[in-house]
Amino acid sequence: MAELPPEASGVALRLKPLAFDTYRENAVFLSRDCVAVRPERLAGARRVEVHAGSLRLLASPVICDDPALVAPGEIGAPQPLFRRLGLPAGALVEVAPAPPARSFAFVRDKVAGEVLTLPQLEAIARDLSEHRWSDIEVAAFLIACAAFMTPDETLDMTRAMISAGRRLDWDGRTVVDKHCIGGVPGNRTSLIVAPIVAAHGLLMPKTSSRAITSPAGTADTMEVLARVDLSEEEMRAVVERCGACVVWGGRVNLSPADDVLISVERPLAIDTPEQMVASILSKKVAAGSTRLLLDVPVGPSAKIRDRRAALRLKKLFEHVAGRLGLETEVLLTDVLEPVGFGVGPVLEARDVRAVLRGRPDAPADLREKSIRLAGRILEADPDVRGGQGEARARELLASGAAARKMDEIAKAQGPSPISGALGSRVHEVRAARAGRIAQVDCWRIATIARLAGAPTDPGAGVDLLHKVGDEVVEGAPLFRIHGSEPSDFQFALEAAEEDHGFRFAS
Amino acid sequence: MAELPPEASGVALRLKPLAFDTYRENAVFLSRDCVAVRPERLAGARRVEVHAGSLRLLASPVICDDPALVAPGEIGAPQPLFRRLGLPAGALVEVAPAPPARSFAFVRDKVAGEVLTLPQLEAIARDLSEHRWSDIEVAAFLIACAAFMTPDETLDMTRAMISAGRRLDWDGRTVVDKHCIGGVPGNRTSLIVAPIVAAHGLLMPKTSSRAITSPAGTADTMEVLARVDLSEEEMRAVVERCGACVVWGGRVNLSPADDVLISVERPLAIDTPEQMVASILSKKVAAGSTRLLLDVPVGPSAKIRDRRAALRLKKLFEHVAGRLGLETEVLLTDVLEPVGFGVGPVLEARDVRAVLRGRPDAPADLREKSIRLAGRILEADPDVRGGQGEARARELLASGAAARKMDEIAKAQGPSPISGALGSRVHEVRAARAGRIAQVDCWRIATIARLAGAPTDPGAGVDLLHKVGDEVVEGAPLFRIHGSEPSDFQFALEAAEEDHGFRFAS
Repeated sequence: MAELPPEASGVALRLKPLAFDTYRENAVFLSRDCVAVRPERLAGARRVEVHAGSLRLLASPVICDDPALVAPGEIGAPQPLFRRLGLPAGALVEVAPAPPARSFAFVRDKVAGEVLTLPQLEAIARDLSEHRWSDIEVAAFLIACAAFMTPDETLDMTRAMISAGRRLDWDGRTVVDKHCIGGVPGNRTSLIVAPIVAAHGLLMPKTSSRAITSPAGTADTMEVLARVDLSEEEMRAVVERCGACVVWGGRVNLSPADDVLISVERPLAIDTPEQMVASILSKKVAAGSTRLLLDVPVGPSAKIRDRRAALRLKKLFEHVAGRLGLETEVLLTDVLEPVGFGVGPVLEARDVRAVLRGRPDAPADLREKSIRLAGRILEADPDVRGGQGEARARELLASGAAARKMDEIAKAQGPSPISGALGSRVHEVRAARAGRIAQVDCWRIATIARLAGAPTDPGAGVDLLHKVGDEVVEGAPLFRIHGSEPSDFQFALEAAEEDHGFRFAS
Repeated sequence: MAELPPEASGVALRLKPLAFDTYRENAVFLSRDCVAVRPERLAGARRVEVHAGSLRLLASPVICDDPALVAPGEIGAPQPLFRRLGLPAGALVEVAPAPPARSFAFVRDKVAGEVLTLPQLEAIARDLSEHRWSDIEVAAFLIACAAFMTPDETLDMTRAMISAGRRLDWDGRTVVDKHCIGGVPGNRTSLIVAPIVAAHGLLMPKTSSRAITSPAGTADTMEVLARVDLSEEEMRAVVERCGACVVWGGRVNLSPADDVLISVERPLAIDTPEQMVASILSKKVAAGSTRLLLDVPVGPSAKIRDRRAALRLKKLFEHVAGRLGLETEVLLTDVLEPVGFGVGPVLEARDVRAVLRGRPDAPADLREKSIRLAGRILEADPDVRGGQGEARARELLASGAAARKMDEIAKAQGPSPISGALGSRVHEVRAARAGRIAQVDCWRIATIARLAGAPTDPGAGVDLLHKVGDEVVEGAPLFRIHGSEPSDFQFALEAAEEDHGFRFAS
């Protein structure tokens, strides 16, 4: 590509907000007769750089032939660009063809089989965090790394991602965290582990993600109980008061390079152990964690399907975390079905509440897994005897201390902005045969819950009525689908009819 | 990603053309209150499928909050989507979240190190040609293939790309073609070789490309002499009458999967031998060629920089072409500078005309290279004795037969739609020292010509006044920059001042 100078214009355009939303991507609307850049010149470059003071944002150009919408002296800014610019309508901005990001040359080296160095990876992480790469460049980098990445390269990538973002500091105190690599619906142990651990007196500032391709993220489920979009200062205040929080990580700028990688990795659905390790550990170190418990579910419908792959991942986590000084324990957990009964924000929050309140109908698997994980974390406390962590966790749950702690955290975070009502449309999916349930496909249940509307519709989802090991008769209800929107609900029903995900022992 | 059924709506929307141009990509504007799909549901999928009868096109959604522009019952279609739909305003179309392309799963296999089979590659090529993959998926495929691809996999990829498009048939006649892998400015031998070869009586239906990142493609230069955007029928008529043509390949649907790959490969600037071989050979076989001469320039500023890489590429071309039954000769040509004097459509056309007319000021290197290439092709004729091809080519050029043939071809293709005037702004770049010119950087000259406005402004470009081997005095003019637009012209001057690309023997 011809190398264009970064400041190719010098002619200022008047900023005009447009009533469009281009989702995550920045787009900019320019008149075909734009006074600052010739549209034909952009066809090869595909990206322009918008300058306003010291701010530089990259955007994809759209050419407008309607002068009433965008005049030759104007630049049309839809959302999210207008919001990201943070300028009033009519402000003067400049626009120029975007120069290619220099750090992308390292991707060519990587494709040619080279091992990237820390300075190279730092340049990449910096450009990623400043949105200087196009999506196809990000995809190229991810796949080039998927071909091979040495453990030390993974370590350097993690370091580079940490230095490209903010890093929280907790004054040298022990900061514990737990994380699950995902893929198992209903696995909301964080919402039980955090209050148990905080009730004991350990610090657990938990930032979590919203669902992108799953029916609920930890942040989505927590949002049924409390507000989650806290700023860094608000989060810090909650943690200082309660010892823990469960907030959405989106407003705390930890490892922004990772956010960009994830936004391309998710739609490609290509997960590599190296990228997973760099992603998770960069976020944890940036959050100031000193001790991490990692839950790696292994099972026929989990992300990691066999023990060998799980062990390889475990060793890589240990290698990188060790070099970063983050004490990390990796637990391989066997998975044959979703955890708990509910899948979808409101249903999952119901299960979490039931466990915290010690209700007899609470899902035993969610309770026992939470106790096991909390127990491992509690042993970080020198005063807890080895092997006594689980007993202490069970005690904090049974006494109601954890439930009170959760109420305290929820109150500190603020009231939930969403209704906790279940979707009013309900359909029961029934067994076509009698038998013992041997397995429930995690991916299938997640798909049905997502089709029903979760997490956009928090009251939508799947409520499991039987677990693995149960004997059912023909026609017995296996699960309920909840939803609100008639068409979404219909898709979920059709998907369940095609395959409901329950597998029977023959 | 949750698997959404392809027909997720069934609610028809009224088509409304919008005065926007999103370049190559399809975009669709939907109201936030769209009656057919819920915008939030599209945030994860990022692509929608637009159905109209049997036509299905993929597009990126933009959400519109201005009902005057796009009402809840409307679908806003900017260019190129509106043109591709080929429907009148007000027509009823349906829209649904696009299901992920199933063939993308094979990319995951490729990333995991597997060799793809012909049926898998056929599914990929078909989905590519139907624009069913997003750009990041295309990038992922390209990089996964860059990691490794066996020669037979390259062969199968070529076969798959051929079967996904149209294939021209010339009734069993010998069809010759020549192709250069590119990277050398001014290398317009096709415009001289085609008329020589046709004047001899061989069939050479040449489809060529427009510049994307270079200052001129063969089609851009030919367009100074004649119309080039011919349909398949028009092209066929020209070839039947004149024995040859030089048209733009864009309207003839040969190897459409390759067009999609190239559109992502170019901005990434990642060229692999395997992808180059599949791309070029699929286009040639689809065009019905039976004998191909490949020009592979090798030099310090060419695409291929050393002999070893050139030989590797040559063998791969020979392996794949041989298995496809396409007789192919690969010529490695040494390159130390651009070919001819002019770089940019009008300047290059001037050089071509000068060679065809036998003018004494015609560039000798362009003439001699064209004669060499034409000579190799002429020996495809059993009546031309081995070793006599060049003499025959020289004779057809000297007699004026080639020039008359070119006039005939240009007349048959139709009059050029563009003015052949040179840019009125002229600047001479001078030598800062005396000495013998040892090398002229191809990439640098291309960049300067492109900055000056070529090929969008056909009269813009660079006119070289000295060639390698010339002795120049200090202050001697090295080349002229031509342009029209003041700001473009200024960028070109600044780039030339920074580095003019001429290297002197020390």
